[in-house]
Order: sequence, then C-alpha cells, then structure tokens
Amino acid sequence: MTTLPPEPQPVPAPPPSAHQRVLAAFERIAEADRPEAWIRLRTMAEVLVDAKAVDERVRAGEDLPLAGTVLAVKDLIDVAGLPTTAGCPGFSRSPVRSATVLARLTGAGAVVLGKTNLDQFGSGLTGTRSPYGAVGSALDPAKVAGGSSSGSAVAVGLGIADLALGTDTGGSGRVPAALNAVVGLKPTIGLVPRTGVYPASPSFDCVSVFARSLALGQRALAVMTGPDGQDPAVREWPGDVRLGAGARPRVAIPDEAGLAPLTAPARKAFDVAVTSLEASGAVVQTVDISVFFEAGKLLYGSALVAERYASAGEVLAAEPEGADPTVAAIVAAAGRYRAQALVTARTKMTELRSAARAVLAGYDALLLPTVPDHPDLAEALADPVGVSERLGTYSTFVNVLDLAAITVPVSPGDRRPFGVTVATRAFEDQIGIDLAAVLTGEQAAEPYPSEGADVVVFGAHLRGQPLHEKLRDARFAGPVRTVEHYRMVLLDGTAPVQPGVVPGAAALDGERWRLSPAAFGRFAAELSAPFVLGRVALEDGSTPLAVLCDPAAAEGAESLDRYESWRGYLRFVSTAVPRSPG
Amino acid sequence: MTTLPPEPQPVPAPPPSAHQRVLAAFERIAEADRPEAWIRLRTMAEVLVDAKAVDERVRAGEDLPLAGTVLAVKDLIDVAGLPTTAGCPGFSRSPVRSATVLARLTGAGAVVLGKTNLDQFGSGLTGTRSPYGAVGSALDPAKVAGGSSSGSAVAVGLGIADLALGTDTGGSGRVPAALNAVVGLKPTIGLVPRTGVYPASPSFDCVSVFARSLALGQRALAVMTGPDGQDPAVREWPGDVRLGAGARPRVAIPDEAGLAPLTAPARKAFDVAVTSLEASGAVVQTVDISVFFEAGKLLYGSALVAERYASAGEVLAAEPEGADPTVAAIVAAAGRYRAQALVTARTKMTELRSAARAVLAGYDALLLPTVPDHPDLAEALADPVGVSERLGTYSTFVNVLDLAAITVPVSPGDRRPFGVTVATRAFEDQIGIDLAAVLTGEQAAEPYPSEGADVVVFGAHLRGQPLHEKLRDARFAGPVRTVEHYRMVLLDGTAPVQPGVVPGAAALDGERWRLSPAAFGRFAAELSAPFVLGRVALEDGSTPLAVLCDPAAAEGAESLDRYESWRGYLRFVSTAVPRSPG
Repeated sequence: MTTLPPEPQPVPAPPPSAHQRVLAAFERIAEADRPEAWIRLRTMAEVLVDAKAVDERVRAGEDLPLAGTVLAVKDLIDVAGLPTTAGCPGFSRSPVRSATVLARLTGAGAVVLGKTNLDQFGSGLTGTRSPYGAVGSALDPAKVAGGSSSGSAVAVGLGIADLALGTDTGGSGRVPAALNAVVGLKPTIGLVPRTGVYPASPSFDCVSVFARSLALGQRALAVMTGPDGQDPAVREWPGDVRLGAGARPRVAIPDEAGLAPLTAPARKAFDVAVTSLEASGAVVQTVDISVFFEAGKLLYGSALVAERYASAGEVLAAEPEGADPTVAAIVAAAGRYRAQALVTARTKMTELRSAARAVLAGYDALLLPTVPDHPDLAEALADPVGVSERLGTYSTFVNVLDLAAITVPVSPGDRRPFGVTVATRAFEDQIGIDLAAVLTGEQAAEPYPSEGADVVVFGAHLRGQPLHEKLRDARFAGPVRTVEHYRMVLLDGTAPVQPGVVPGAAALDGERWRLSPAAFGRFAAELSAPFVLGRVALEDGSTPLAVLCDPAAAEGAESLDRYESWRGYLRFVSTAVPRSPG
Repeated sequence: MTTLPPEPQPVPAPPPSAHQRVLAAFERIAEADRPEAWIRLRTMAEVLVDAKAVDERVRAGEDLPLAGTVLAVKDLIDVAGLPTTAGCPGFSRSPVRSATVLARLTGAGAVVLGKTNLDQFGSGLTGTRSPYGAVGSALDPAKVAGGSSSGSAVAVGLGIADLALGTDTGGSGRVPAALNAVVGLKPTIGLVPRTGVYPASPSFDCVSVFARSLALGQRALAVMTGPDGQDPAVREWPGDVRLGAGARPRVAIPDEAGLAPLTAPARKAFDVAVTSLEASGAVVQTVDISVFFEAGKLLYGSALVAERYASAGEVLAAEPEGADPTVAAIVAAAGRYRAQALVTARTKMTELRSAARAVLAGYDALLLPTVPDHPDLAEALADPVGVSERLGTYSTFVNVLDLAAITVPVSPGDRRPFGVTVATRAFEDQIGIDLAAVLTGEQAAEPYPSEGADVVVFGAHLRGQPLHEKLRDARFAGPVRTVEHYRMVLLDGTAPVQPGVVPGAAALDGERWRLSPAAFGRFAAELSAPFVLGRVALEDGSTPLAVLCDPAAAEGAESLDRYESWRGYLRFVSTAVPRSPG
C-alpha cells in the first residue's frame, strides 16, 4: 500500500519560518488556481504580519508546537476580523472574538490564510451546496471535493495549507478528507470546545482537523482540546481512558453485506488496508454493521434533524441572500416534527448506541471505508440529496453512536484517492490514531490524552511476557536503561519465573509504559509481594516509578547482572538448555 | 436534633427470620389500616411462601444481604405475577418478567408484600392523583403523603415495610420520603437499570429506594446497581469516582433567597440540620441557587415535558378507565411542542448543568430542604397543580442537573416531619450518603461504588498530617495494626519530616484508606523516593498495599519502634520538647 500525494511527511525539523511558509502557500494558491475553495482569502500582506509575530516569538525562545504551519478555516468558525458567512452571504456576521480553537491554534503558532467554502450551514456531504461555487476535489476538479468542509480539505489536499479546520456532524470532517487524500481527525464529541463555532446539530457537532500528516493533525488536535470555561457541553478525558491496544489490536471490519455499497476499486483499496493492518499484527474479524447503518439513517431520517432546524431554520425561513435551495428545503422539512417524535428518536439512539457497543465489545476499533466511491461533480449537482446520502454511508452514524474517527488516505497502488476510517469508542481516539499510523506509516507520537503515568518494568510484565496482560490498556513509551545502581536477581519460587530488581551496581534494560490514572491504579493494586513500586533512576535523567523488588527477597538469589536484562537472560537460557531431540 | 419515629435503627443482628418479619408486617398492616397505600397487596399466604424460601436459603448457608426484610413496590415497576397498573386501572398489564431491580432485591432475600399506590404514571408530587385513592402521610392522614411514590413511602413510614421501591423523575423518591419521615435514596441517573420500569421521562427517571435506615437503603441500592445487559441507558461508575470528602467536607446551602420558600418551622428544622453538619466538621457556605430553580422550571415548563407525552400520551389519549383528569390534562398539554423547541430546551439544560457545576465547584455537596412545607390533603385535592409545583421547589431540578440526592428525616425536636436532601454531583452518591449519615447518626458502611483499592499509610499521609491532602478523594477504611515484622525509623532529610517503614520485628499502627482506581493511580504516581508501595501484613490477616520505605534509606536511622506509630512519636516529641514560656 502506498499513500497518495501529497505524501504525509513528518513535520520537517527545523521547520521553515512562518514567513517562508506563508510565501510558499501563496505561491501554491496562485499555481493551483482554485478560488472556489475560499470564501475569504486574506491578503499575503495581512498574513505575513501574523507570520512575523510567530517568527519573533520563536526567536524569543517560545516553544510553539505549530510554528511554521499555515491554517485554513471552515467558514462556520469565527475568526476575529473576518466575516463568518456559514456559506450564506445574507447571514454574514462579523465576530469580535475568535473561536476557542482558533485562539488556541494561533497561540501555538499557526497562521490563518483565510476562510474556506462549505456546504451551506454545514449541511451536505458533496461540497456543491454553496453560492460561492461548487468545490471540486484537489485531485480532480471534475470530481466532488466532498463536504461540508469542502474548501478546508481542498486547501490541504492542494498542498496550500498544512492544517485546516472543519466541522463534522455526519461526516463533514471525514468525507472530504478521503476525497482529497488528506488526513481527517474527528475527535470524540465534546473534547474540543465549540465556542465560536456556528452549530449544525449541537448534539453531534465536532470541530475536526484536516492535516497533511497524522502526526501534525494530532498535534493540532492536542492544542485544541480541553475545557475553555465557555462551551457548556465540553467533555473531559475519563480517568480510565485507554492509551493503547497492545501489539495485537483486535479490529472489526464490516461483513460482505456491510461492504456491498463499495465500488470494485474501492473494495480493492479497502482490502489492501485490511491486509496492511493484519501484517502489522492486528487481528481482523468481520462484524454485522446493520445497526450502524440504522443509526446513520436516524440522523437525517428522524426527528433528530430538528437540531438542524433549531440551528438554521429561522435564518433560512427569512430567505437570506444566497440561500442554497437544497439546504433551505432540507432545513425547512426538519422543522416539521413534534417534540415527542424527537423523544422517541433519542430513545432509539440510546438503544442503537448500546447495540453498537455490543457489536464492538472485545474490539479495539472498527475499520471502515470512508466513502463508497468518488462521484463526479456533475452527478452531485444533478442529484444533490442522493449523492450526499450515498457519500454518508460510512460516516453518518459515527457521531450518532458517539464514536471517534480518524480518516487516512490509502491507495491500492493507482492514484485513485481512497480513504479508510478507524472508528473507536468515545475517548479511545488514541487507539484510532495508533491504528491509522500503521496505515500511513507514521511513528506514534505523544499520546493525545494528556494525563497518564509511566511505569518501568523489567521482568514478567515486559511485552510478550506472561504478565504483560496486566498492561493491556497501556501505551509503550520506549525502551529504557537504568543508571549503574541496580542489580537483577532470579527470584525463588515466583510463578511465573521472575527477576527482581534491587539496589546494586549494574545498568539494566527495561520498558516504559504509560497508563491512564485508573489503569495505573489497577496495575498497582494487583502487585504482589515481594514486588514494590518505587522510583528508578534512568540514564536519561528521569526517575519514573518501576516494578522493583523487596531486597530481603533477593538475598542469596542468583545475579543476572551479566545479561543486563531479563530478555538477555531468557535468550541465554533458551540457548544453553536446548530441548532434547525427538 | 432528633430523628423522627420510626427511629432509624441499625439492622438488627441476627435479623428476624423472613417468616417472622412477614407476620409482623401483616400485623402492622392491619393495625395501621391504610388500604389506600396499596394497589395490590399480596395475601399473607402468598408472601409466606417466599419467606419460607428465603429462610431455607439462609439455613443452607447463603449470605443474603436483605434476608429478613420486606419490600413494597411502586406500581410502575413490574413484578411477575402481579399486574402493573401505573395507577390507571384501564392501563393494567400482566408482566411475565420482573423488573431487573426486583429480581436483584428478591435474589438478595427481600420479600415482596405488594404493589403500592402512586400519582398516576408517576406524574405529580402530592400522592393525590390516583383512582385508587388519595394517600395521606404516615404521620398524619390529613396531610399529603407526597408523590408520586406515595404508597411506597407510607408503607415504610408506617413501619410495615423495611424497604420500598419508588421512581424519581422530579422528586418522587424524595418528596414522599420527607413527608413520611423515612430515608429516600435517589441515585445518579442510570446507575440502577430501568428494565421493567414504566417510563415517565426517560432522560430523567431513576429507580429510588425508601428505607427505614440509611444503611439498609444503601445496602439495597448496592444490590440494585450495575448493568443488566438490557437497559441501554445504564451508566457505570467512572474510574475516578470520589469515595470520600475528608474530615472537613465543604457543603453549600442556599442563600436567604433560596430558603425564602420555607415556612418558619421548616426553616428552623433546616437550620438545625446545618448546625449539625457544622458540628461534625463540615464547612458550610451559602450559594445562589437561582440556576437550580431555573432548571426545575425547565423540567415541566418547557418542551422537556414531551418526554411525558412520549411515555403516556397515547395511552391517556385513548381515555382509559380511571384516567386521572389532572394527569391526563398535563400529559395532553405535553404533546403540543415542536421538536425544535425540545432541541432548544435541551441546549438550555446543558447550559444550566454547566452553570450549576460552576456553583458547586469546590463543594462536596449541596444541602437542601426536601420540601418547603407539609400541605394538607384537602389543599392538594383543591389545587393539585399548585401544591405539586410547590412541593417540587427543591427536588425538581435534581435530575435535570444530573445530580444524586439522599433525603433523610430530621426534626427540630417536635414531631413535624421534615426532610433534608444532600445533593451531590453525578456518581458522588457516596459523599451524599456519608453526609446524610452524619444527620441520621449512622455509621458509614461499605462504600456504595464497588471498585476501589486500599492503601495503608503510616506517616505524613495520616489524617491531619502534612501529606494527607494526597488522599483527598479517599475514604477512611479504619485503623490498622501490622504483624510484628516491621520497623519504623525517622528518615533523614525528608520534607516534611517523615518516618519510613521497613522490615523489622515490631507491630505498627497505621490507617487504611480506600481510593478509586484513578485516585489510587494518581496517589501512586506522586510517590517520591525513598518511599515505595508494597504489600504489608496486617494483624487481621489481610495484605493491602502500603507506603513503605526503601531499606537502604533507613540504614542508621533512629528507630521509632517503641512509639508503635508515627502519632505516638509525635505525641512524645510534643511532650518532650515543650515550647519555651512567653
């Protein structure tokens, strides 16, 4: 499997100056000549003022995780000083404050290029429902860009922007990612504050990120995440958030019926992604996703659509300049439900969430195609509702079911764009990112959830060893080596056979694992004598907690110091004591 | 402060046989002569069959936490073999399966006496909206019993039942508890499965418990709690659930405006409860509860009431036999909202939840009157809507704001019933139970949330010592003494001054604290050298984890063994080194 151009690249180090990056972006804007991607592009002079400020902060020694990146912003999201149109000129308003996410991203060094085109009020998955023009794909202007965050995905897909903000209610942060061959991260509902973001369906709206690499997208998401004291619906990381799925993650994929909507090339691309995950050690099994499809239909085929009316109904009923007829008709229809029908729909949603949890029980993620195919722009203009529904086949249910999802571009070798989505339970975003990183070939970065604690292990808890199961929800944080103050002995009478680490004069190799607070607590609570948790001094100067041993239990035990690690000793044992032949 | 009759009593040990208990219950039923409390009372012969089965299980050695208790069941909750009427004869249906909670309680040894009267479909707080008769208080039949769980509270208030099940949407598990001087436990929404319970407003409905003592109610609640694989809206304990609020819990109370609805005697009773909490060490401060009142109005004064229509609207529209005119009118009116109004109401609810969290930030609980006064039955019959609204002043907002609440009877010395409510954030039910236990004078029992781990501390983490703050969300689980295998030394150079516990030959005193998994993980992660977490052997035979010390750090340090504990040493120091006079 190869990834599509633009190739996901690790962020170059050292990054270009913001000034250089802005010049390159405007060069690429001119070269690409795709003005329909933008509703409002700032002038290069305006953007360079911001770039200069970033470069000065960097020179002054500030550590800005997004310095040297340029950002495009979906025009549902407020940027102080620029109008917010929601894709509807007659709705245009001038926010005095930027959205929380904007303030956080620019605070971290990103520079805003402008506001991007979208399906009006975030309604649609084609990228065609806008008086500012139908948006074609970055890879083929005769194909749809996907929506509703069309311009944002295209800006990244064309190599203009490093990052772009979208919003995602039923797929708007994932469908256009797939159709422009970029990474799309749709976090768990509520992790990112929506202050300053015009709502589409407030129960399901997420701010999403398009990025030229998974690592960069994750870095941006980390900056955007966390309560802002203003969005009342913000959710915080639970204390038992899973940080990893182990070396053999269990991945569900749709069964044949679930993959039936795919075209043949799309199916081939999906199969290649599956093979790629399996090759990396994942255990892949098929599941029946009919409850997922049912949830998708619920979002727009039940009284849940009343959320759209509550957001944009009165605005559109006033027939503002540039109202899109398709959007206006859909939103008007969404105003026709009675409240008890919404109660019933929400009850149904709760049931479907439970049923979907049951399908996913025992799995770490659900791998999905992002879209079934890549429609032509002409087809979408002729049948805006039908094409939009088809594009939402694998995305519309995700927020209804309270899942997180990451879309990454893959291709079976030709240049046809195809995206796969890794969906996970709410708050297990990191597990989705790890699996997506397998598909993009990227290295795992710092985990997305911020809170956690490290434990260093030396013996039976090591990866592949008998007690490693106790670290099942932990995330590997690298090999470690201690300073020369330790001693490893072979303990007597433990089952399984285990080493003990006590004070001494040797340096030992071990592994560092990161756990959520609750997973750390459960790990600690299962510790049995003679093991203890105490600080260990590592070569890198850090002193994390480690599984050590009560020195009394080590008295008279055989020293394993010459092997420098438990694995070294195990290798020696397996060589020195060959099994008798036959 | 004294509690009202029937006095909350620790469950007698050994408990009466179920047979004896049933005989006593039927004797009390005859004596009390309050048939309006029941919709369907089983015959004594029927109940004695169940009692016999329980007594046989106990004799066979089963450990049944509720053996010897009798239970009354609100007639919204299915009991196989008995009709469920919801207070409406024309609705009556014959469930083939009991509700999950029923199966769990009877499995734990409770014996069902029958089904109790209620405000029809759980709608109302007076106990008068039923064709089976208006229900008067257990303490004064001319006063209202409160509703909607009227008969259940009266059955416990009269001393007939030990336990009774209610449901609570806007106060139905708390208002009647207060007006019959019994304990009412309204757990966090979703902890207790609602399978087999007819809904009133599914987003807010809770199964609640009335009990003759807080300890017994908590024991029943623990039996009822946890996923049943059927209720799709069940919520599980979070990994970071708080288990305790420390020795000086911070309790918010309403300011003068918030207490204005109270009658003079009710205000006096409330003030006595406040004084009582303060005397126990709580820090009490007033807060503005206007956002709470606003949330209360939202439940029945906005499109949120459409939930009532979705539950009972079609049933009542068919004009079933015995439909209560007040309930029918309220539910019919609840069918008149548009779906977008419900979206707006739910958005408002989210904002109010956030605002209420802000008011409660830094507090462990909110102490409230349960009701403003105790209306006459005649008044409630004359003005069923007005009296119901008034009774809900301090209860209606609780589920809208996703709080847990415990109501306990208190009295300023006369026999007028008065209840106070301890409301806490969702999942902090145990903190409410602990504060309520102060008011009833009961001992804290096993914590309600089931998952947790113990840590034993010997030095600066002890209660009142400098590092005790690190156990802020932990729950005291008792003093402990080790076996004679330890040694306590005075460590050199730690700040604050601390002892270290290492292997030796002395028995030492310490404290055992229970923490949630996440709190345990955070506690462990903050441990600094030379301390370690390892197993300690206690006199009672258990081997919990404890804060111990690296033996190397104890070499040459002064032994404190002769003081047997850090407190012993501190007492010696304070005596031996008196401050110089003046």
